[in-house]
Amino acid sequence: MRTIDWREPATIVIVDQTRLPSELVTMEIRTVRELVGAVKRLAVRGALALGVVGALGAVLAHAQAEEEGWDGAHLRAEVDALKRARPTAANLVWGADEVIRFAREGRAAMKERALQLLQAETDACRAIGERGADLLSELGHGPLRIHTHCNTGSLACVEWGTALGVVRCLHRRGLLQGVLVDETRPLLQGARLTAWELEQDGIPYEVIVDAAGPCMISRGEVDAVVVGADRIAANGDVANKIGTYGLALAAARAGVPFVVAAPESTIDPSTPTGRAIAIEERPEAEVLRWADVPTAPPGAAARNPAFDVTPAELVTAIVTECRVVREPAGRLPEAVKTR
Amino acid sequence: MRTIDWREPATIVIVDQTRLPSELVTMEIRTVRELVGAVKRLAVRGALALGVVGALGAVLAHAQAEEEGWDGAHLRAEVDALKRARPTAANLVWGADEVIRFAREGRAAMKERALQLLQAETDACRAIGERGADLLSELGHGPLRIHTHCNTGSLACVEWGTALGVVRCLHRRGLLQGVLVDETRPLLQGARLTAWELEQDGIPYEVIVDAAGPCMISRGEVDAVVVGADRIAANGDVANKIGTYGLALAAARAGVPFVVAAPESTIDPSTPTGRAIAIEERPEAEVLRWADVPTAPPGAAARNPAFDVTPAELVTAIVTECRVVREPAGRLPEAVKTR
Repeated sequence: MRTIDWREPATIVIVDQTRLPSELVTMEIRTVRELVGAVKRLAVRGALALGVVGALGAVLAHAQAEEEGWDGAHLRAEVDALKRARPTAANLVWGADEVIRFAREGRAAMKERALQLLQAETDACRAIGERGADLLSELGHGPLRIHTHCNTGSLACVEWGTALGVVRCLHRRGLLQGVLVDETRPLLQGARLTAWELEQDGIPYEVIVDAAGPCMISRGEVDAVVVGADRIAANGDVANKIGTYGLALAAARAGVPFVVAAPESTIDPSTPTGRAIAIEERPEAEVLRWADVPTAPPGAAARNPAFDVTPAELVTAIVTECRVVREPAGRLPEAVKTR
Repeated sequence: MRTIDWREPATIVIVDQTRLPSELVTMEIRTVRELVGAVKRLAVRGALALGVVGALGAVLAHAQAEEEGWDGAHLRAEVDALKRARPTAANLVWGADEVIRFAREGRAAMKERALQLLQAETDACRAIGERGADLLSELGHGPLRIHTHCNTGSLACVEWGTALGVVRCLHRRGLLQGVLVDETRPLLQGARLTAWELEQDGIPYEVIVDAAGPCMISRGEVDAVVVGADRIAANGDVANKIGTYGLALAAARAGVPFVVAAPESTIDPSTPTGRAIAIEERPEAEVLRWADVPTAPPGAAARNPAFDVTPAELVTAIVTECRVVREPAGRLPEAVKTR
């Protein structure tokens, strides 16, 4: 299932992630302003998905400019608003810029480039999935119990997914027993989105609270932990959704493989180690409320780091669309490849 | 503040924990049936608190029997219903049995024993708090940043608390900078109850999602982790609220002290190691809903272990009302003392 797509003559179709899991609603977006609103309220999220949104959004902006007779300044302002919709989303800016480079060659060329990027993202995920499944099938026992965190599926990546792509490949090969899904507080991307994707695909899964993850690993209920990544430093340290580090600690102690599945574009050679990765602190309200009901007393303070850093020495392997780096500690800088 | 108490001639007064943090409501309980209902819906919870509920409940049952002219069989049935209200709550049975032993000596003797137990619980917590604060003050730097999990305060322990008793003593001595409170999914005893208790006492705190705990420890934001215990095996392995194990792993890696604060009655010499502790699996619905709003797709399955086991070698010290056991791995059996 493709969760973001283009429809002629000038419409972006996205699955509204805020309505899941209770409803599957697709939005038809025909203006840049609508698209910016959708990005800001997280109707579409996930690094790879936002890259495609930036690319298709640039095409949409040019189509709208033609139809409504915008001048150059107006067009630039609209594209800038899209790029700024999520300040830390590098892929959003990257996707838009990749397409705008083709503006002089006309709208058809821009659209072609945007659809190329969309296809490249989905191809990368397929390759990551197959390579990850190859690696895990080496574990050499029966169907695997995979533990994952947050959402790394078609919602985050247009189609297929990174860590969830590995899960899907294992399932197709008959090598999957089931998936343990961390609910992923505060925004519950695991319980809401990953569970929904697995449900759609008929893949058996169980949701657990995040705090139960290390316990399940220690009890021998997990054969491998497979997660995505938001950024991988040059030395192999991995920034990913908050909660990943605790799983890595438990996996290392239990001797369970801890695998990171992410495209090469996630590896950032300009970040030497995890210490150099700025951790986004998100609003306190995400922690202190759920479904508009307060979870803590009025006046409570909260901290809300969105990501944590797992040191490379706890990582068994990093799987990308073109290679597997085993025990990556300190070994990535020489091998970096960009998209 | 005393969260469970006795009022003449025959009323148990408890704080309704399900209404916190939005409202502080006390319930006046005059029948065993009301008490059983309150225990089942977790209006009162926490190992030490349930011991007192069992003790006062036995007195209440005898008063009600006298007033309503119950025969012996009726009385026994009512007391049994109370003991069975929480199947895994050893303290509930223990408290009731301790008081029923005095039935032949009359209701005054029973009430005296029940109030003795209540006082003994609160005294034990005060002693644990002072001893824990002594231990942590040895860390020898400025005011401490303490990380805790679940609720171990006056709501769980009648008054003062175990791990939260240590926090309160540090605060009184001017040795506390602040408390990091894990929200403690699925029932949010940290966000709802611990935060509320700290708010009442004017102790500075911040709530975090459970998944952020290991990250905060790794980032140097925690000077010591202090938790309670539901059961301590003879070898020093500690069963406590799910999520404790991940904190212990992170603390060990960061060289941060991991301290368990619990009364001697929590140490169970008949349980040789953590492997022998049966882990209660609670209803899936606790994971799959919050405030009556589903968090996962319809038909989702969940696992809901209520506790995890932290191996003794990750524990820096166990603090009880009469001793500090440092690095308890394998060292508890000889020293066990019962109440």
